[in-house]
Formats: sequence, structure tokens, C-alpha cells
Amino acid sequence: MSSMLELIEELWYLKRDIISDGFDLALYRLAEELSGEMKIHKYPSGEQCWTWHIPEKWTCQEAYLETLDGHRLFDYGDHPLHVVSYSLPFEGIVNREELLNHLHTHPTLPDAIPFIFKYYEREWGLCATRELVENLTDDEYRVLIRTTSEPGELKVGEIVIPGESEESFVLTAHLCHPAMANDDLTGVVVGLEVARTLLENPRPYYTYRVLILPETIGTLAFLSHHEDLIPSMVGGLFLEMLGNDSPHVLQGSFQPHSQVDLCLISALTGLDQDSYSAPYRTVINNDERQFNAPGVRVPMLSLSRVEPPSSPTRPYREYHSSLDTPAIVSQARLEDSRQVVLGLITAWECNQYVVNRFKGEVFCSGYGIWIDYRHNPEGHRRLFEIMERCDGEHTVADIATQLDVSFQAVWEVVEILLQKDLVWLSRTPHKTTPR
Amino acid sequence: MSSMLELIEELWYLKRDIISDGFDLALYRLAEELSGEMKIHKYPSGEQCWTWHIPEKWTCQEAYLETLDGHRLFDYGDHPLHVVSYSLPFEGIVNREELLNHLHTHPTLPDAIPFIFKYYEREWGLCATRELVENLTDDEYRVLIRTTSEPGELKVGEIVIPGESEESFVLTAHLCHPAMANDDLTGVVVGLEVARTLLENPRPYYTYRVLILPETIGTLAFLSHHEDLIPSMVGGLFLEMLGNDSPHVLQGSFQPHSQVDLCLISALTGLDQDSYSAPYRTVINNDERQFNAPGVRVPMLSLSRVEPPSSPTRPYREYHSSLDTPAIVSQARLEDSRQVVLGLITAWECNQYVVNRFKGEVFCSGYGIWIDYRHNPEGHRRLFEIMERCDGEHTVADIATQLDVSFQAVWEVVEILLQKDLVWLSRTPHKTTPR
Amino acid sequence: MSSMLELIEELWYLKRDIISDGFDLALYRLAEELSGEMKIHKYPSGEQCWTWHIPEKWTCQEAYLETLDGHRLFDYGDHPLHVVSYSLPFEGIVNREELLNHLHTHPTLPDAIPFIFKYYEREWGLCATRELVENLTDDEYRVLIRTTSEPGELKVGEIVIPGESEESFVLTAHLCHPAMANDDLTGVVVGLEVARTLLENPRPYYTYRVLILPETIGTLAFLSHHEDLIPSMVGGLFLEMLGNDSPHVLQGSFQPHSQVDLCLISALTGLDQDSYSAPYRTVINNDERQFNAPGVRVPMLSLSRVEPPSSPTRPYREYHSSLDTPAIVSQARLEDSRQVVLGLITAWECNQYVVNRFKGEVFCSGYGIWIDYRHNPEGHRRLFEIMERCDGEHTVADIATQLDVSFQAVWEVVEILLQKDLVWLSRTPHKTTPR
Repeated sequence: MSSMLELIEELWYLKRDIISDGFDLALYRLAEELSGEMKIHKYPSGEQCWTWHIPEKWTCQEAYLETLDGHRLFDYGDHPLHVVSYSLPFEGIVNREELLNHLHTHPTLPDAIPFIFKYYEREWGLCATRELVENLTDDEYRVLIRTTSEPGELKVGEIVIPGESEESFVLTAHLCHPAMANDDLTGVVVGLEVARTLLENPRPYYTYRVLILPETIGTLAFLSHHEDLIPSMVGGLFLEMLGNDSPHVLQGSFQPHSQVDLCLISALTGLDQDSYSAPYRTVINNDERQFNAPGVRVPMLSLSRVEPPSSPTRPYREYHSSLDTPAIVSQARLEDSRQVVLGLITAWECNQYVVNRFKGEVFCSGYGIWIDYRHNPEGHRRLFEIMERCDGEHTVADIATQLDVSFQAVWEVVEILLQKDLVWLSRTPHKTTPR
Repeated sequence: MSSMLELIEELWYLKRDIISDGFDLALYRLAEELSGEMKIHKYPSGEQCWTWHIPEKWTCQEAYLETLDGHRLFDYGDHPLHVVSYSLPFEGIVNREELLNHLHTHPTLPDAIPFIFKYYEREWGLCATRELVENLTDDEYRVLIRTTSEPGELKVGEIVIPGESEESFVLTAHLCHPAMANDDLTGVVVGLEVARTLLENPRPYYTYRVLILPETIGTLAFLSHHEDLIPSMVGGLFLEMLGNDSPHVLQGSFQPHSQVDLCLISALTGLDQDSYSAPYRTVINNDERQFNAPGVRVPMLSLSRVEPPSSPTRPYREYHSSLDTPAIVSQARLEDSRQVVLGLITAWECNQYVVNRFKGEVFCSGYGIWIDYRHNPEGHRRLFEIMERCDGEHTVADIATQLDVSFQAVWEVVEILLQKDLVWLSRTPHKTTPR
Repeated sequence: MSSMLELIEELWYLKRDIISDGFDLALYRLAEELSGEMKIHKYPSGEQCWTWHIPEKWTCQEAYLETLDGHRLFDYGDHPLHVVSYSLPFEGIVNREELLNHLHTHPTLPDAIPFIFKYYEREWGLCATRELVENLTDDEYRVLIRTTSEPGELKVGEIVIPGESEESFVLTAHLCHPAMANDDLTGVVVGLEVARTLLENPRPYYTYRVLILPETIGTLAFLSHHEDLIPSMVGGLFLEMLGNDSPHVLQGSFQPHSQVDLCLISALTGLDQDSYSAPYRTVINNDERQFNAPGVRVPMLSLSRVEPPSSPTRPYREYHSSLDTPAIVSQARLEDSRQVVLGLITAWECNQYVVNRFKGEVFCSGYGIWIDYRHNPEGHRRLFEIMERCDGEHTVADIATQLDVSFQAVWEVVEILLQKDLVWLSRTPHKTTPR
């Protein structure tokens, strides 16, 4: 069993274009780690996925840029990012102006090859460092791009951790992006480790579904072929960029008042005090968009490590470039992220309506839970503020949100009340007010 | 066919007291312009209109102020505003103190005759410039006011533009106020030109009802005698002071969250970028009050040109005075206002629930509607923010209000989605969320 | 019939521990004042009250602290606060360190004996001034505390003023706390005087229930034994600390949008312009907590006189000490508080939905209620703002809250409209909007 970082090091350099042998290889290797728990769904090229269709499988056999006298300036064999993902084939001598129209550089990193993709409005294209491109002074160059597009199969890996309920919570990460590590192999390996832990733990209440897929079209393929599952999806979490050196950010869903949003956001503050949360579409856009979209509307949040909004290199400096390598990822940060995800899931499992068996205030000293206001006024106040919201109409997350404290701070009190048989938990509201 | 300004120049100096020959003459002249499309409703003096009753018709035959030695200081023949509208008759010699109790001046304009009216708590009264009144040094003066009050008929002009639906939108302006132009002949002529355009255009969805009437009592007379129409009145717009040199202001209705409010306010920003909007009762009070009042509660907004709130002469310098003449009105501004009103109506016609035929996000590049975030991040974001609210539960106005953009900016996207058959429009909510 | 201050002076020094002969004596004396209108409920020691149980009756026969050579430092006979309420008996020689663990002083007042109570987690304890305690330099002292705990009866006094409706409003104050005056004998005597006035007045709409009881456990005893009454309790007011020299504060209930909250808070501003209001649990905590708690949820506010939040001696300097004597209470302030409570009740009786008989705006000058905007623009605006909310969907309190004016300012207009038969009052919403 490989560590998360070992898996990244093993798989990152594969040419994991959205439908490609490299993607399939990475997915099968990950399935192996899960000892048969991962099911692989296959969707053929051309298949309709709501308003979309599955592209062909794409392969680059060879590509390079040469001077007319045969000096090779760069070669696909040097780095997979030298060719635009899904580039059309091309061979010929082009003048410099035309070449520059097809040769992409990174906007901020002069020594990095950018990641460029053209899945649907296709043309031929190459990528190189700005340093190289700025030294191209000849009038003409020789270009060779040998790529093939052929019918293939988009693949989605699905790990289901069955729960008591058919209501499911979805964890997603995307495995595509050739020769990059943080975006989003880190989300993939964290998702797999979380899946492994959930499989080892006692059966949860919710069913958990971990999806490993190519970005956007993978989610659309899965959802459009599993419409029957959508009504029972109660929420989800996209996992993204979890290895780099930035604090955790939790991006809310399109429905900021959903129980999933309230629960995960209040729980994160109790799990990682350096973290913060932000509204939908203000941190990073990814597959969570398909879940949040019209006709689906599953509240899916997104957990990532991202530079602060003021940073000019947000989401992170090496984003979509050849510098996004395992060197910017650490096992310790991956492990922290895994713990945060498990902590969020623990909170979500606990998030129920707290129904009072008691009436009036609880006889705290009689139950041994008295906090003396003369010695701990803050604790005393908090205890009472929580207890007085245990009325069958507030969830744990509702109480935490109202009081602006962490989910865990509320749960600590609720757990004591449960032990004393003063409350019970309900999945649905259970009003106890007599009037 | 006269221009709007020509009509104002023709009619403004008429003695258009609320029930008077001058009012009737002006109304019949306007009806003539509409070639038989205006119906004239008549309500006799004394008729009950909910808690009100119709006053008598009022006429001033002659009036003047003289010194005891026969020097005539001013005469009703000089200007119709010299007599308080609905003044009781009076003849006699009065001392200066008593005279000043009955002789009104304008609070801010020393050279203007003010417009004063006493329709219900009647007494005799004259009006003059402050310059004149401050030079009255004699002990006694001779007053003559010959007026008659007699049974007459309040008249309301109604132009109906039939729509597919019996649900109606009401446009209103008042034709009363003797010898004044901007308040509110400008609203009247803009309303008539809008009516003419609507009659020439293809049949709209809503029925439009343009009402030309004497202020307050005219609206009460019409509404109290057409209670059956009220439940199908979905909204309205009062037209007021549209010729002077101030920016457009749209005053919201008593129900600031009504679809009419959201639609018209978000549409105005797309029609006139110098305009602004303000809450109910904070700009100008007029007939829209009767529509917004208890037992009627039709959300009626009010469009006017008014000086900014900080201005000491708000709503406008010449308001309710003899300086409110065609000289402060321009045909260009009237035409702009007409275009704004038509633009608001266009938006109102378009304002429906946008129902997605798609699920997930739309395959934008496949439909040729992709906006590249690398070149136009703002346009990209806007496109997606609008599409993701097309869920059968938001109207165009709801989306514009949520995103704080103009109605037209949203409609532009919705129109493209309609062309691509990706959405359809519904007059009622049509939820498409599976859960 | 004694004045409120006379009653306080007569009863304050009694040893009114929560279940004690002193408490019973005070309660019977008050019942005598009410000429048979007070019913006394009795609950035996050990009786279960929801999660609580009734403690035993407690009596202190004798207690003192002596030096080993017999010099008596203080004696229970000097002041009832010298012994912790519900102290266990103790007799023996203790070293200074152990003594200080059981000898309590006041945190801010060096010359005051503090009020300390240990009803459930019991131990032996004495109280003295800090001045005395700081001069204890001997190594050992002799302690004698002779107390008994025996089965007794908790007593609750209940005065019911029957109304037309069985829906009841509850006024509460606590009679316990030995040898103190402001906390809360002042609330008790104000409650009794209010009860007396209500009994003399014409039958109200609501039933009023005035409860005089020992703090917390008294409320729990009453409520848990009258669960059938809870659904018809529409609201309540706790009366607390009403004799000291601070402005009135009204603390809202757990349900800040309840009609009781809106009504009482808007009414207080019309009754006492030096008063203010504050949210639940931010002024003082007392028996209103049991009413507001889960399973009961009667919105109960709390009226008190309390120093401002910035004051270090909040709620008041002499709180829970031997300085809380009749000297800090004045009959004039008690009388003011009584008038405020009666004013709040008057507002509550008046608080109904105002249903318009009129449509459109009222013909104000015809009804003689016109306020000229040229002379009183504020009054004119207010009149119309109130009238336009008289639509059968707003209570008087709703209107006052929306307009941020006093309940009385709205009621003044509503009363005129009632006289003119323009509106009627309804206990339930009665929508009059046609659409």
C-alpha cells in the first residue's frame, strides 16, 4: 500500500489527457490500491451527456519544433506539456508569425511550459517556455505534430461506501491533466485515502460515493447516466489542490443555507483554525459546478488549498504549468487534508435535529454538567445558549451557525446531553413547543 | 398629429381645475389625437367614491384686487393662478391683515404666483407674487372674486391596449392643474404617445390601460367604479414631470419585492445610465398612492424627472408656480422619457420564469456561446451566473436583481438560450430541481 | 392597605430562603394584602419537577465564628447573610486556610456581607465582610453552624385576573433571597399592585396570572404541575429590581419577533423615554428563562432597572449583598414601574390586526383628520404611513416596529380610525388585498 505522496510520484508524469491511455493507466493503478472496491464506468466517444458529448480518445505519438537546419528546439519526449492537449496533427514549415499564433507560453512564469487544452474548438498547438520563445529569431521553422483522435472510452472510477441510508454524499476529484501533480492528483489521493478509511470504519449513516474522473465531461457523463441517483444525493465535496503550501479554503455551494453548507463550514473552523470559507464561485471553479447546476442542484462544496484572494498568482504560483510537480506537494499536508475531510464527514454524520426530552432548563448541577458562571461565565453562557436551542427545530449545524461557534463546540454539549438521555437526535424536525 | 411639445403648448394655459370646462376641453382635445381610442368616463358631482365624493364643477368668472381708489393690482384675466382653485366667491373691502390671511405667495420664488387649491376645506383666496404682496402698504383693499360651484361631471380618459391576457398594467397621469406645463401635462402627453405606439405594435401579452384624470379624486372615481378590474391589475406606473431638466427617477411601489418593482428598477438601469431609483414615498406623492393603498394594493411605481434629494427646490424649481411653463420643457426630453417608458414595458413583457431544458452546465462551445475566461473573465462569469439561475424558479428580474445587473444584460443571455432551445419561458414557477 | 415601600420595609429582613418559614411568612402576609385573591400552591420536598426536584426546607438555628479564646467575630443573629443559604451544619475548630475555603466575601464591596447559596451541591459556609476577613490572623478559629434540612413545602402564590379569553399573560417575580430588598421584593410588590389594579379594572381580554415564587425551582414547580396551562400562555413579563436608581430596561424574549416582544418593546418607548431594550440574556437572567426554554417556549420578557452595560457594578452596586436594603429603593420609582407595567399591559390588550373598512386612501379632510403637509410634514407622513399599513395583515405592534415609532403613536391614529368606523380590530390576520 503506497503512501499518498508515493502514488503521486508514481502517476504524476503520465499523459493523463481526458480520454487517453495515460488516464486509463492511472485509474487502473488506483483501482488496484482499493483492492476491488472501485468500479470503473465506461462511456464511449460520441455518447450524449445531456447537452454535451464524449470526445474521442487522443494520443500524441511525436511532436517537435526544429529550425530549418534541423536543430531541434523542443520535443514532446522532453515534456508532455509541449503539445496542446487534443492538438490536431500538423506537419510543415511555417513562418514565425504563424508559429507564434500556435505556440503558447505561460503568462507569469518565464521558465515554465504552460498547460493548454482545446478539447472542442480544436486546432494544432505547441507550448514552450517564454525564455525559449523569445529567442526565436529565424524566419521559418519546421513543425511536426503527430496526434491521433479515435473512438475510445471515457472512464470514471466509483467507490461506494454503503451506509444505512440510500441518501448519499459525493466526494469528487479529477484525475486528468498530464504531467501535473497538485492539480488534481492531490485531490484524487486524498479522496482515495478517505474512501479507504470509510471502508474500514463501521457502516456510516449516509452512503458515500467517491468519484475519480476527467474534469467536467467526466462528471457530466456520470450524472447524465445516473439520473436516478441524483434525488438521493444530499450533498458533496470536491477535493482540489490539497498538497501545496496554502491554508485550507472551503468554498460554499450554490445553496449557502443548505444543511451541508452550514455543517461543513462550521465544522471546518473546529478542525483547522488557519482555514477559512468563501462563497460559491469565489475560490476555484471545477466539477462542483455540474452538481450545483440547474436540474441537478446537489449542494457541493469544494475544499482546496489556495493562496489568499489578494495574491496575483492565485490559486497557486505553479498552477497549469510544468512547475506543478510533486516537489510542491508534501505528505504532511496531504495527511492534514485527509484528516480535515474525515472531520467534515464526521460532522455531517452527526448533524441531526436535537430533540429535547427535557422541558424548561435542565437541572445542570443534578446531572453534573453545571458550569459556574462565577468562574467560567463564557462557558456557562455557551452551555445555556446551546441547550435552549435543543428544541427539535434546530440541527447541530443550525445552532453552531446561529451562535457563530464551531460545529464541534456544539456537538460536545449535545453529546453530554445524549449521554444523560436529555435529548435524542432526529433526521427530520420534531417540534416540541406546545403552542 | 401634434408633437408632444405642441400639445403642451396648445393646452397648458387652459384653466384645468379638477372639474372644470378647461379640464374637459383639454381631455376632448387629447381624445381627438387618439382617433377614437380614448373612452371618457363621467362621474357626477356628489357621487360616492369609497370614502370620498365627487366635488362640484368650479368656475371663476372674474376676480381682482384693487386699491380703494380703483387701482387694479392684479386680475384673474392676467393669470389663472391669481385665484385659489375652488375659491369661494367674495366681494368686499378688507383690511390688510385680513387680506394677507387670504393672499398666498410662493415660499421660494419672489416673482412667481403660487398654485394653491382648497377643494374640500374651502374659503376665499387669491395668489400673487411676493414682490407685489410686500408692497401692499394701504390699510384697506377691495377684493372681488366671482366664482360658481355647480353640479358637473368628473371626467377620466381611458385608453385600453388589449393584450393576450386580461391581466393589466396601468399607466396614469393627471391632466389637472391650471396653466402649468411640466406638472403634469408632460406625463399626460408621454402616456398618450406610449399608448399610440402600443396600439401600433403587435398585440402585447398584458393588457395596458392608460388613464388620464384629475389628481387623486380622478383615480378614486375610476377605481371605485371598476373594482372588478382591480384583481387583474398586476402593476402600474405613474408618469409625472417628464419635461424638465433633471435625470429620470423611478420611485418603487409599496411592495418593493414585487415582480413589477424588480423588473422596472433593473430595466431602468439598462435604459438610462443617469437615472436612479428610490423607495416608495421618498420622491413624489401622487395618484400611485391610491393604487398602492389598502384594499387595492396594485404595485404602482412612479417615473419622474426630479432634482436630487439634497436640492432645496426639489422636485424642481418652478413646481406649483406660474413659472411652470412650456419654457422649461423640451421635446427631446419628452421623447427620451417616452423611450424609457416603452423600454420598461418591453422588459415587463419579457419578464417570465426562465425554465431550463438543460441539466448541468450547458456545453457552451458546442452551442457556440462560449466566452473564454482567459480573454473576458467578467463576461464568462456573468454568462455562467445567469445560466445557473435559469431553473424555473427565477424570473429574469429576479436574476438581474440577485446579480445587480440590468434586466437587459440578463435578457441578452436568456434570448440566446431561447434561440438555442436551451430554456423556455413560463408565467408561473416551474421547479426543475429533482430533490 | 400598605404602600409598596411599606410592604418592603415590613418583609425585607425575613430569612426568605427558597423553602423556609421566612418565605412562607412573607407569602402569607402578601396574600393577606390581596384579600383572598391569591391562591397558594404547595409542592412537597422531593417532588419531581421535570428534570429537577424540590429541595428540603432549610433552617438555620444558630451560627457564629469565634476566636479560640471565645471572642465572637460575627453571629447569624447579626445578619441572616452570615450563613450560606442551605449551608450544611458544622461545628469544630478549623485552621485559617480551611476556614477561608468556607468563608465568602463580596468581590467589590469590602464592607458588605455577600449573598451566597448552595442549594444542590451543598457544603458548610459562612459569609462576612472583606474588612473582617482580611484581619483574621489567628492560626485557628471555632466555627458553629447549626442548620436543619427537613421535608417541607415549596410555595407559589398565584393571582388570576380572569379575562374574556383563556389565553393568558404571565407576570412573575421571586420572593426569595433573605434580607434583601431590591432583588426581588420590588418586583413582587409591583406585581401585586398591578394585580390589584387589574382586579379593580373592567374585565380584560387576556387572562392575567401573577406568580410569586422562589427563584427557578418555584417556576419549574408551577410549570411542571400546570402543563395544561402552557399552550394558552401567549407571553409574559418577569419583574425584577424595580426600586433602585437606574432607568428601565426591557429584555426581549428568546423569540424576538413574537408579537409580545414587538408590542412591549415598542410600547415601552412611548411610556418612558429614558428606557431602552436589549436582547434576551443580555441584561439579567432569571425565571423568564424557564418560560422561554424548550418544551415551554412562552415568550417572556423581563423588566428591570439596571445600570448601563458599561458599568462594572451592573446590574447594580448593592446586588447580592447586605447593602441591598430598603434604603436604595424609593416609593416613587416603584410607582413609576407599576405605571410602566400597566402601560405595557394596556398596549398588549390593544395589539390586534387593524383591518381596513376603507379602500384607497381615506378622505382625510372629509373625516376631519387631515394633517396639512405644508405645516406639519412629519405628522402628515406619519398619518399616511400608518393608514397604509392598516390592511388586516399588520398588528399595531407590527406597524410601530416597521415605522420605528412607539406603539402609542400608532394606536393614537388607529383609535381615530376606529372612532370614524374606518377600521376594525381582529385577533387574527384578515387579508383585504383583492389579488
